Amino acid sequence: MKIISDPYVLKEYLKSKRERIGFVPTMGALHDGHLSLIKNAREKCEVVVVSIFVNPTQFLKGEDLESYPSKIDADSKICEIAGVDVLFLPQVKDIYGEDEVRLQAPDVRGYVLEGATRPGHFNGVLTVVNKLLNIVNPDYAFFGKKDAQQLNLIMLMVKQLFMSVEIVAVDTVRESDGLAMSSRNVYLSTEERKDALKIAASLREATKLITQGERDVRVIQEAMLQILKPLEIGYVAILSREFEYIESLRVGESIILVEVLVGSTRLLDNIWV
Amino acid sequence: MKIISDPYVLKEYLKSKRERIGFVPTMGALHDGHLSLIKNAREKCEVVVVSIFVNPTQFLKGEDLESYPSKIDADSKICEIAGVDVLFLPQVKDIYGEDEVRLQAPDVRGYVLEGATRPGHFNGVLTVVNKLLNIVNPDYAFFGKKDAQQLNLIMLMVKQLFMSVEIVAVDTVRESDGLAMSSRNVYLSTEERKDALKIAASLREATKLITQGERDVRVIQEAMLQILKPLEIGYVAILSREFEYIESLRVGESIILVEVLVGSTRLLDNIWV
Repeated sequence: MKIISDPYVLKEYLKSKRERIGFVPTMGALHDGHLSLIKNAREKCEVVVVSIFVNPTQFLKGEDLESYPSKIDADSKICEIAGVDVLFLPQVKDIYGEDEVRLQAPDVRGYVLEGATRPGHFNGVLTVVNKLLNIVNPDYAFFGKKDAQQLNLIMLMVKQLFMSVEIVAVDTVRESDGLAMSSRNVYLSTEERKDALKIAASLREATKLITQGERDVRVIQEAMLQILKPLEIGYVAILSREFEYIESLRVGESIILVEVLVGSTRLLDNIWV
Repeated sequence: MKIISDPYVLKEYLKSKRERIGFVPTMGALHDGHLSLIKNAREKCEVVVVSIFVNPTQFLKGEDLESYPSKIDADSKICEIAGVDVLFLPQVKDIYGEDEVRLQAPDVRGYVLEGATRPGHFNGVLTVVNKLLNIVNPDYAFFGKKDAQQLNLIMLMVKQLFMSVEIVAVDTVRESDGLAMSSRNVYLSTEERKDALKIAASLREATKLITQGERDVRVIQEAMLQILKPLEIGYVAILSREFEYIESLRVGESIILVEVLVGSTRLLDNIWV
């Protein structure tokens, strides 16, 4: 496995490749969710590039940028074992300069849900993903469905800016008890870990209702809120795959999203139904 | 000459090209300045693509979007004679959708000079140039030095977003009396046309002073203002090539920029000294 930290060196190195390039951008603290992204890239592409970069511009003031879990040695080992060809480890100064051109998330879709709780967050996400995609210039880039809004906005950016990459959406990986894998799960105490299971439980309840034929968004939402009630709820939203609010759920075209605060840890989950 | 209006058709068509692609984005109403850009592209590249697109997002409310000179038949003929291979004529709906991801000009360099007079103008410029560069994916893109701040910001965008194109800066072309070529020159009455010559005269005066050894920015500025005084002056600025204000001019590293309003027509000019 090649380890490269200079963006220009990486860009030059990959430019000569004629094989298909698959790219998995991460913020490190790799777990089975990331491994699934890498596995998908491995199956589809001859060259697999993983980046680890804790992107400062997507953290708001007071968020967990300083404490965001970092374990670069373990991550590097994981990548090597997973068959990654190139590990890209840029420093902040390699990616950002002064007085910069930035990406701006769309006024509506960039400022609902996560974008409402964390205004400006997606500007930082789109800016760094735009830069990383331009550095790596991959045929395919792999993102998890767990960060559904991020995925939606990245797909939107690629389409609206006519970028040359195909975005591949990869299913959420869960712990055996149903908790969606997240680098932030390490923040949870034993007690909080138990509380967090209500998220998956609420999504299972939604699935059950839909299987029984329920299509009314308010009814499904209400049932989920009953389960999530003991927690501090960010949002429970049922949207079209284009992230528009809907009144009646259409199977195969909808997403149900949950954000809760467990202790001081913000947890996201969703199902694509 | 191939004429294409669908961005996806153009992108697909150019993807198969193995030769060097040169790109000249324009807003039409082509004059000798544009021809010089095309000639530069012709010399450097096997495939020359010209786009004509009057980009609505770079016009502020109340500006001349509706009346911007358009003469597509003449432009098309000019391109054909100049040996252009592909003329790209997208419609607004092909380039822009609803609720869009946009580019944001840098807080400092994007909001001085033209950016101060026309706040938000460069957001629109960068957004459309980003899209066009992603559609055409050229090896080289050609921009005139006349729009020096635009050129500076586009170069900055390419660098900061790690884009894969090389930007080529092409010298300003002038009428025989010294007026810099501009599509907006057609707005000028005979009287205004005469007034507009003071711009080139002020730049010649600056050149003379510098040749005589003058390096004090305030002295050069003052001499220029004396000449421009009868006109409504937007700015007279002497900057480094990185668009930073300087006190003492360094030959080979500076730009002198002028913006004046002649009648209701905004005219720009500059020299790279």
